[in-house]
Amino acid sequence: VQHILNLKGKRLRPLMVLLSAKGFGISQENAMSAAVAVEIFHNFTLVHDDIMDKAELRRGTITVHEKYGLDRAIVTGDAMFPLAVSLLIKTHPEKAKSLMEVFNKMASEVMEGQQFDMDFEKRLDVSELEYLEMIRLKTAVLLACSLKAGALLAKVNIEVANQLYDFGINLGLAFQLQDDLLDSFGDQKTFGKRIGGDILANKKTFLLIKAMESATGTFKTDLLNWVNKKSFIEEEKISSIKRIYNQLNMKELIRNKIDYYFQESIKIMGKIPVDQNKKQALVELCNQILKRDY
Amino acid sequence: VQHILNLKGKRLRPLMVLLSAKGFGISQENAMSAAVAVEIFHNFTLVHDDIMDKAELRRGTITVHEKYGLDRAIVTGDAMFPLAVSLLIKTHPEKAKSLMEVFNKMASEVMEGQQFDMDFEKRLDVSELEYLEMIRLKTAVLLACSLKAGALLAKVNIEVANQLYDFGINLGLAFQLQDDLLDSFGDQKTFGKRIGGDILANKKTFLLIKAMESATGTFKTDLLNWVNKKSFIEEEKISSIKRIYNQLNMKELIRNKIDYYFQESIKIMGKIPVDQNKKQALVELCNQILKRDY
Repeated sequence: VQHILNLKGKRLRPLMVLLSAKGFGISQENAMSAAVAVEIFHNFTLVHDDIMDKAELRRGTITVHEKYGLDRAIVTGDAMFPLAVSLLIKTHPEKAKSLMEVFNKMASEVMEGQQFDMDFEKRLDVSELEYLEMIRLKTAVLLACSLKAGALLAKVNIEVANQLYDFGINLGLAFQLQDDLLDSFGDQKTFGKRIGGDILANKKTFLLIKAMESATGTFKTDLLNWVNKKSFIEEEKISSIKRIYNQLNMKELIRNKIDYYFQESIKIMGKIPVDQNKKQALVELCNQILKRDY
Repeated sequence: VQHILNLKGKRLRPLMVLLSAKGFGISQENAMSAAVAVEIFHNFTLVHDDIMDKAELRRGTITVHEKYGLDRAIVTGDAMFPLAVSLLIKTHPEKAKSLMEVFNKMASEVMEGQQFDMDFEKRLDVSELEYLEMIRLKTAVLLACSLKAGALLAKVNIEVANQLYDFGINLGLAFQLQDDLLDSFGDQKTFGKRIGGDILANKKTFLLIKAMESATGTFKTDLLNWVNKKSFIEEEKISSIKRIYNQLNMKELIRNKIDYYFQESIKIMGKIPVDQNKKQALVELCNQILKRDY
C-alpha cells in the first residue's frame, strides 16, 4: 500500500474533494479524511489495473505486482478498499450513509467500466456511445464522486450536490478525451507516458473508433491493415496511424468534443447557487487540467 | 459474480446474521440485506483466494479465474465489495455508520490474515501464537462480524454486541482448528475436500506447527524430511505425516484446543443478557458446526 501511495501523482481527486468542500464552508482539516479516501480508492484501482495491463512501470517506478508478485498485489488492492471506506466515514458521522452510498455506487461503476474496457479489446465495432459510457464509468464517476462527496460534507441540498456530480461527469469525459488526444499527439515530456501507446495496443479510443467509423476507401484499408498487422516497426505503426487520423481530421473532431464537454461543465457550474468567488478555485483547477497544449 | 454465488455452500455466515438478529427481535426480512452482504463479501475473498491458491475447482465446480481468466476474476472480486457494502447499509439507515465500521475493520483484518497466511508458506518457524492470530484474522473475525452485525440491527447496547463478537471469535477459532483436524483426519465424503491437502502443501496448520515444536529425535528428522522432500508419492507423504502426528498425540492436542475455544464461546454466550430460548438457535448452530465426527 505504501509503495503505490508513495508514487505521488497529481492528487487530482483529493484536491477536488477539498475544493468542493471548501466551496461550501468545510475546512481542509475536516475534509481531509474523505479526500484521502478517494485517493486511496483510486490507487487501489491502479494496483489492480496494472496487473491486468501487465504494466511493469507506473510513473517511472516498478509496479506493485512486479515488485511484490501477483498474490500480494491482489491483496494490496483488496486491503485498500476498506481502508478508503474507513477514512470516508471517519468524520461527519451524520453523513456516513449518504457518503457511503455515493462512494459505493461509484466503486461499482468503476469496476463495470474496467470490465467494458477489457471487453472492448477484443472488439472492432465499439461505437462512440459505448466508448463514452465506458469512460464515464471508468474515469468520470470518480471525479464526480469526489466533488459530490466534498459537497455532502456540508449542509447542501441534494440538488446542489448532484449538480457538482454532473459537473464532474462532464469534466471527466473531457479529461479522458484529452488523454486520448495526448496519447497520440501530446508532447512526450509533459505527457509523461510514451506517445503512441494507445495506437500500439489498438486501444479503442475515441480517435480509433471515430476513424474506423468515418474512414472509407484506402484510408479504411490502411487503417484496418495497421490494426490487424501482427508484426511491424512500432514507430512506423504510430506515424502511419497518426497520418490517417490527421487526414481524417480526427484532431479537430476530438478537440471539438473535449470543448463540448468542457463547456457543458462550465454551464452546469454556472447554475450552482454558490458565490462566484467560492467556485473560482474549482474552475481554475479545471482550466489547469484541460489547458494542456494540444 | 453469479458464477461464484451459484456454487451455494453452507451459507453459514448469513445464517449467523439472521439468527443473531432474530435473538434481538429483528425479523428475517429486515436482516436479510445484511446477511446477504456478509455472504457476498465472503465469496469475494473466495474468488481472490482461489487465484492465489491456483485452485481449479471450488465445491467441485470450475473456479472464476479458470472459467473467465485472471483479469475478470480480479474485477469480479473487486466489484463484490461495493455490492456487499451497498446491501449492508440498505436498511436501518441509523445503523449505517456502526455497521460500516464493524464491517470495514473486519475486511481489513481478513486481508491482513490472508497476507499472513501467504507469508507463512515460506516459513518453518511459525509459532502457535502467530498461527492463532492468523486464523483469528482470516476466519474468525468474519463469523464474529456476522454475529455482531445481526445484533447491531437491533437496539442492543454495544457491550452485548461485543459479547456476540467475542463469542464468534472463539467459535471461529474452534471452527478453523476443526478444519485443520478434518483436513488430515476427516472422512473424505463428509469433508468434501481431499483428505491430506494441507499435508501435501506443507500448510502451516496447528497440527504441523505443534508437531514441529514437540518432535524430537527421529520424529523430528522424519517430519523435516517429509516437509523438505521435493519428490514423493502423495499418499505416502500423507500417511507418513499422519503417523507422526498420531505418535505425537496431535489429534488429542488439537481436540483439546477445539474444545477449549468451544467452551469459551459457550461461556461467553451464557453471559449475554438475553432469554435462553432466544439464544437456543445460535447454540444449536454451533453444535451443528462443531459436531462433525473426529
